[in-house]
Amino acid sequence: MNSLRRIGIVGVTGLVGQELLKVLEKRNYPVDEIRGFASQKSLGTSFQFRGKSYKIGENNFDNLDLIFLCAGSEYSRKFRDEHKDKIVIDLSSAFREDPQIPLIIPEINGGSIDSTSRWIASPNCVATLMLMALYPLHRLYTLKSIIGSTYQSASGGGRKMLQRLFGKEESSIPYNLNLFSHDSSVLPNGFNAEENKISSEIQKILQMPELAVCMTCIRVPVLRAHSISLHISFEKEVCVKESKQAVANFKGVELFEFEDRFATPYDATEKDTVFVSRVRRDLHSNRSLLLWVVGDQLLKGAALNAVQIAELLRSIHGIHSTSRC
Amino acid sequence: MNSLRRIGIVGVTGLVGQELLKVLEKRNYPVDEIRGFASQKSLGTSFQFRGKSYKIGENNFDNLDLIFLCAGSEYSRKFRDEHKDKIVIDLSSAFREDPQIPLIIPEINGGSIDSTSRWIASPNCVATLMLMALYPLHRLYTLKSIIGSTYQSASGGGRKMLQRLFGKEESSIPYNLNLFSHDSSVLPNGFNAEENKISSEIQKILQMPELAVCMTCIRVPVLRAHSISLHISFEKEVCVKESKQAVANFKGVELFEFEDRFATPYDATEKDTVFVSRVRRDLHSNRSLLLWVVGDQLLKGAALNAVQIAELLRSIHGIHSTSRC
Repeated sequence: MNSLRRIGIVGVTGLVGQELLKVLEKRNYPVDEIRGFASQKSLGTSFQFRGKSYKIGENNFDNLDLIFLCAGSEYSRKFRDEHKDKIVIDLSSAFREDPQIPLIIPEINGGSIDSTSRWIASPNCVATLMLMALYPLHRLYTLKSIIGSTYQSASGGGRKMLQRLFGKEESSIPYNLNLFSHDSSVLPNGFNAEENKISSEIQKILQMPELAVCMTCIRVPVLRAHSISLHISFEKEVCVKESKQAVANFKGVELFEFEDRFATPYDATEKDTVFVSRVRRDLHSNRSLLLWVVGDQLLKGAALNAVQIAELLRSIHGIHSTSRC
Repeated sequence: MNSLRRIGIVGVTGLVGQELLKVLEKRNYPVDEIRGFASQKSLGTSFQFRGKSYKIGENNFDNLDLIFLCAGSEYSRKFRDEHKDKIVIDLSSAFREDPQIPLIIPEINGGSIDSTSRWIASPNCVATLMLMALYPLHRLYTLKSIIGSTYQSASGGGRKMLQRLFGKEESSIPYNLNLFSHDSSVLPNGFNAEENKISSEIQKILQMPELAVCMTCIRVPVLRAHSISLHISFEKEVCVKESKQAVANFKGVELFEFEDRFATPYDATEKDTVFVSRVRRDLHSNRSLLLWVVGDQLLKGAALNAVQIAELLRSIHGIHSTSRC
């Protein structure tokens, strides 16, 4: 039986790859063998895992049970053509909208995969953080429309974006003490690629292809953790107290409201939990709520979610796990 | 006849007071006498105007024609009790919601004041920037609801907030490379004071007390200029092309869209114009638009709007003016 203990990480030197190593360690994910891969320029350098150093070698996936792909969508597409037999958790956007590929947040739609699932996509970081906050409310009141504005941190754009923030990378728009519309191309529908991804991934995960999702994605001069300002309309009348309870009781989510103190990116940095603050009712509609959501996009938005998918696969395959999913 | 050429500025050492001096200079506002006032600790220090230095003296408003109040609402309330006869442009929030006091953005409701108007309030900076962008669209399609999320810069919170950003002021929440829910108290309706102000001021200026305005106000680590992400619903069907034209043709507003390049706080800093970017239709409603609005909150959001009110008063009083309102 494939026990998913021989692991490969493609993009191991990137911000998400590095978090993956930490999450696997922290959650005691059982590993018999680990291999890390990266771009040509990292060949021969090494990465650390559980106190040991590993060399980054040429791509060789033989005898690996499970591959995490965090090297971008172009790489994932190529990989899928060449390795149809592998069990893959794909953190890129390449196949997220493909109806054949499950797009999974274990707490929400983990039940939709089974032992035949071999290629699983982990969603866009903003989509994941939003859905973690919204799902307990959706179960109560049924989502009707979502209007969201993001405050996305530099690390969401990888090392290059962090360098831009610190003025170490050329850029036409200053980033330090400034902010800008998300750096993905605007598509003919007027929304940029990031905004479109978030909408379609949320629709897919909830199996609500007609759900109205209207996003505005903004990059802010913050190191880590994304924030999202949300206005949500539901089919049913909402109750603020009940909403707060539902959010607080949902695994992986925490209500963060202490008088006038609400969640900030600093509070969420390196935390597994998604924080929900400022839960309040629209004064003009008893079916609408406003929320402020903050979460670490490298953890629940990426690496943590991917490892949770791996843990879920292990449990589906009937493997006894020491992990805590 | 009162020619409004003998001017007093209360709060002249503050960020807004300093901008007021610059705007009066730049617009060639005719000044025969100028006096600046500030808190006790600034007594004896001086301010510059048109190349001359003026001492900050004890409060003496005798023979002044026009007073700008930018010392906070507590001061404005006290001032109104003691100086009922003065012509005042009040930049504080003290009387903005008072039905007896006109709340004026000259381009929008300048026509609602006349020669009997003696105390005029200049609106909240976010309300002003938003309305500048929305008014040309309102004239076309009639506003129905506004959902907005702000990205407010440090200078909107005065010198203390700038010091917090630079780590020179004690604070329970880190500000550099972080962001947080606006630092005004949350009221029993769940919205904070800033969010409530913006809603009620917009309703008052448009004379639409039932207009649905839903704000989320966030302070971001940006030096100057506020940004606002807006979702707007109208009574009538919208056309993106027509909307862009209307916005571009409205005096004081500029459409800022160059392929994938949109307005940022840097672009708006020290600019009189309010920039509108990312004009697009809600994919799920032909009566809704999304916009990204950026403007200098110290200029059109405060000092510039106040000086435009002064110029408007001069024209109402039938005074020939060299200014450019």
